Amino acid sequence: MFPITYQSTGEFMKLMQLYAAMKSDLQAIEDQMAITVASDLPTLSEASLHLLKAGGKRIRPIFVLLSGKFGTYSVETLKRVAVPLELIHMATLVHDDVIDDANIRRGQLTVKSKWDNRIAMYTGDYIYAKALTVITELDKPRIHQVLSGSIVQMVIGEMEQIRDFFNVDQSVRNYLLRIRRKTALLIAISCQLGALATDAPPRASHALYRFGYNVGMAFQITDDLLDLCGTEKAIGKPPGSDLRQGNITLPVLYALQDASIKDKLLEEIELIKISEGVANSAAAVKLVRSSSGIKKAEEMASRYIAKALKALEGLPDIPAKRNLADIARIVAKRSY
Amino acid sequence: MFPITYQSTGEFMKLMQLYAAMKSDLQAIEDQMAITVASDLPTLSEASLHLLKAGGKRIRPIFVLLSGKFGTYSVETLKRVAVPLELIHMATLVHDDVIDDANIRRGQLTVKSKWDNRIAMYTGDYIYAKALTVITELDKPRIHQVLSGSIVQMVIGEMEQIRDFFNVDQSVRNYLLRIRRKTALLIAISCQLGALATDAPPRASHALYRFGYNVGMAFQITDDLLDLCGTEKAIGKPPGSDLRQGNITLPVLYALQDASIKDKLLEEIELIKISEGVANSAAAVKLVRSSSGIKKAEEMASRYIAKALKALEGLPDIPAKRNLADIARIVAKRSY
Repeated sequence: MFPITYQSTGEFMKLMQLYAAMKSDLQAIEDQMAITVASDLPTLSEASLHLLKAGGKRIRPIFVLLSGKFGTYSVETLKRVAVPLELIHMATLVHDDVIDDANIRRGQLTVKSKWDNRIAMYTGDYIYAKALTVITELDKPRIHQVLSGSIVQMVIGEMEQIRDFFNVDQSVRNYLLRIRRKTALLIAISCQLGALATDAPPRASHALYRFGYNVGMAFQITDDLLDLCGTEKAIGKPPGSDLRQGNITLPVLYALQDASIKDKLLEEIELIKISEGVANSAAAVKLVRSSSGIKKAEEMASRYIAKALKALEGLPDIPAKRNLADIARIVAKRSY
Repeated sequence: MFPITYQSTGEFMKLMQLYAAMKSDLQAIEDQMAITVASDLPTLSEASLHLLKAGGKRIRPIFVLLSGKFGTYSVETLKRVAVPLELIHMATLVHDDVIDDANIRRGQLTVKSKWDNRIAMYTGDYIYAKALTVITELDKPRIHQVLSGSIVQMVIGEMEQIRDFFNVDQSVRNYLLRIRRKTALLIAISCQLGALATDAPPRASHALYRFGYNVGMAFQITDDLLDLCGTEKAIGKPPGSDLRQGNITLPVLYALQDASIKDKLLEEIELIKISEGVANSAAAVKLVRSSSGIKKAEEMASRYIAKALKALEGLPDIPAKRNLADIARIVAKRSY
């Protein structure tokens, strides 16, 4: 389903076993996604299917399904949560690519690059609207309220990212608030809605929300680390992309606290800024890599994973609980 | 609330009386819209309020309120339908302006012009998401299903418009299908959801849907006529904008059926096309104005209005019914 290079074979095997065990339900979600985005309009269908085929880790559907195990599990019901959440995630990626002027994602041409910005904007709007048609099949107002509230926060997170481009004076707290909205919330509600849809006890849905939130924070920090430390092959896009577009991530903020490289790094970031995307970010990336920023950011990710595991403690001891814990541990160590 | 130049003082008075009679409920909707789009993020708040202040005819809220008179009228309930519908309409306008590269709408700078395309895209996404948070307060799955299904159709309509740019071989049927999705559906469901939200009898909601659909068709045809025949002051943007961007509307399609001007008009449209927006559309506009296309399109709009009035027949004879009929007649004759 996606290209992976793992640091540890043991983790890779665990994840593959989990995918294998959930194969038929994940396939049902995959099929439903394809049905949902199908359209009489060739451009929309092609652009949407192009996105579906590019794959992804399907982390949100997996969390929906596993969280559903704490209630009355039904793939028919959970599909109606997992499909919209994954599609909404995809829609935001399409819009992000317009904003970021990105040509490559997941090793594939982006919609804005293969078609154009107009098609990308409407494809995003279309996938998003289609996602909603699926979730409205569920007769649970709370689910719709949680989802729409989170989407608002996600968009605000995206706007904050634009606002904070090249802002080297932002605080770590500022960064954390931004990725909370941009990434962690959707993962948190994937867990929460899986529980709500299957009528799991409120205690479980709260714990699962907290689990998802903390995993989501670790997930984004790891993503930001990979953009600095990963290879183009492993991450499916050129490394250093974040810095090139002015996105100041946690390792960079920590690197800026390192007095021995601060001035040099500020200079490099300023060069990228004034070149308006033409300058290479390699020198800045090298500086960050040589700083303590990488290790500090890794530690922060680990702390979120620890909190995620802690959130699971109160849950009943079913296999899904161990699966969630395994995924959390893998997220912190992934290199894809 | 909006700049108007009416062809007939009688119509103007009727509309003003209606606005006056509905003033407090319309104000409640206006207030709720401002509350809904308020945000901690200055750019989002400013861009959204800029849009709100630009005004508009608020035709969707009016239809929601009047349709609510056929059920158990409650402004608290109807607000939760009217606010999202008007906000969704606004969100599509913001995205359209990005696509159309429009700098002026309703006599005001567009968001993409005052800020930039990125801000415009996320402002659209934000307003749209905020709209959904309001409607999810209503515990009626059918309302959410109708709305999300219509949004999908709207986006498809927008994409069809891009697909059909400069396509001089498209049929009238093609045009009608496109404006059905692009415009008429949202007006149709404004009426339908006003009825559904207030538990009006199914017969009433069906009739109101048909009424709204037909008024919506006439509304868009009139809009397309105004783009050709209106003055910049009256329509709040430079006339001939549609043709300049390649949007072939009904009067143009009818003009192309006129053998005496067809070749000349095709030539002018081709000139606009190859100049990529630089060429003036004045010559093409003049040709269409001189053709029978204007009259034929006006007749088509009138037929839709007649159908709209017919749809009202089965409804109980309450004041709202006469108000709806008045609005339908005004739509066909508006010059703003």
